[in-house]
Amino acid sequence: MNSYTPSSPRGRFFSGLLHRSCLLLIVAVILLLFSSGTAMAQEKTKMVRLAKLVIDPAQLDSYKAALKEEIETSVHVEPGVLTLYAVAEKNNPTHITILEIYADAEAYKAHVQTPHFLKYKELTKEMVKSLELVEADPLVPGIKIK
Amino acid sequence: MNSYTPSSPRGRFFSGLLHRSCLLLIVAVILLLFSSGTAMAQEKTKMVRLAKLVIDPAQLDSYKAALKEEIETSVHVEPGVLTLYAVAEKNNPTHITILEIYADAEAYKAHVQTPHFLKYKELTKEMVKSLELVEADPLVPGIKIK
Repeated sequence: MNSYTPSSPRGRFFSGLLHRSCLLLIVAVILLLFSSGTAMAQEKTKMVRLAKLVIDPAQLDSYKAALKEEIETSVHVEPGVLTLYAVAEKNNPTHITILEIYADAEAYKAHVQTPHFLKYKELTKEMVKSLELVEADPLVPGIKIK
Repeated sequence: MNSYTPSSPRGRFFSGLLHRSCLLLIVAVILLLFSSGTAMAQEKTKMVRLAKLVIDPAQLDSYKAALKEEIETSVHVEPGVLTLYAVAEKNNPTHITILEIYADAEAYKAHVQTPHFLKYKELTKEMVKSLELVEADPLVPGIKIK
C-alpha cells in the first residue's frame, strides 16, 4: 500500500467515490464536446439551395400535385432531406421557389436517385418551362420553422 | 328504479364504468377535433413571403451581421415569427433571399414595430440597394426543417 492510498475503509470509500465522479465528469465533457462538434460539422456540411421554376400555366395544378407528393414522400422517407419548402408567388402563381436543405452532398445524391424523385422528374418534364438552381449559404444555419 | 338501471351492485359498477369511459371518449374526440381545427386554422392564417434583397458589396459584412442579430432576436422573442430563413447566393453573395413565415398578419404587424426590427431597419437603410417583397402561398404549409 503506497502513501497515496487512504488507510481507513471510510477514506477508501470516499476516495473511490471521488475518482468515479471525476471519471463521469470527464466522460460527460468529452461527450458534450463530441456532440457539439458533430452538430457544428453537420451545419458545415449542409447543402442549401433555391430552386426557381416557371411552370406552364395550363399544367399548373398537375405540376403542384406532383411536386406536393414528391416533397411529402422525400421529407418523410429520407432523413437527409431536411426540408423542401415550396412557395408559389401570389402575383405570379406559375413562379415557384423551393428552399431545399439537405444534410450533406451525399443525402442530395441519394435523393435524386430515389424512385419518388425520378417519378416526379418524369411526370413534370413537359410542365416545367424553366428551372434555375441557385446554390446558397444560409446566414443562420441552425434555424428551424416553429 | 327503472328497467334500464342494473339491479345488482356489480352491474351498477360496470354500467358506471361504461358511462364514464363513453364520456371520456367523447371529450377526447371533441378535444382532437378542436385541436386539429386550430392547427388547420393556423395553417390558413400563416403569412409567407420571400424578401429578395441586393446589398451594397462594400457593406455586405456589416449588413449580414445586422440581419443575423435581427433574425436571432425575432425568432427567439416573438412566438409569431415562425422562421426567417436567410440565404446568400454563392455566385452572387450580395443577393440575399429571406423566407419569412409569420403565424398571421397580426404577428407580422407586431414584428415590424419591435425595437430589434426598427434597429435593423435604421442600421441597414444605407446598405440595401434594392428590396422586393413577394407574397407567397406555401405548397405544403405544415412542413418543417428537421
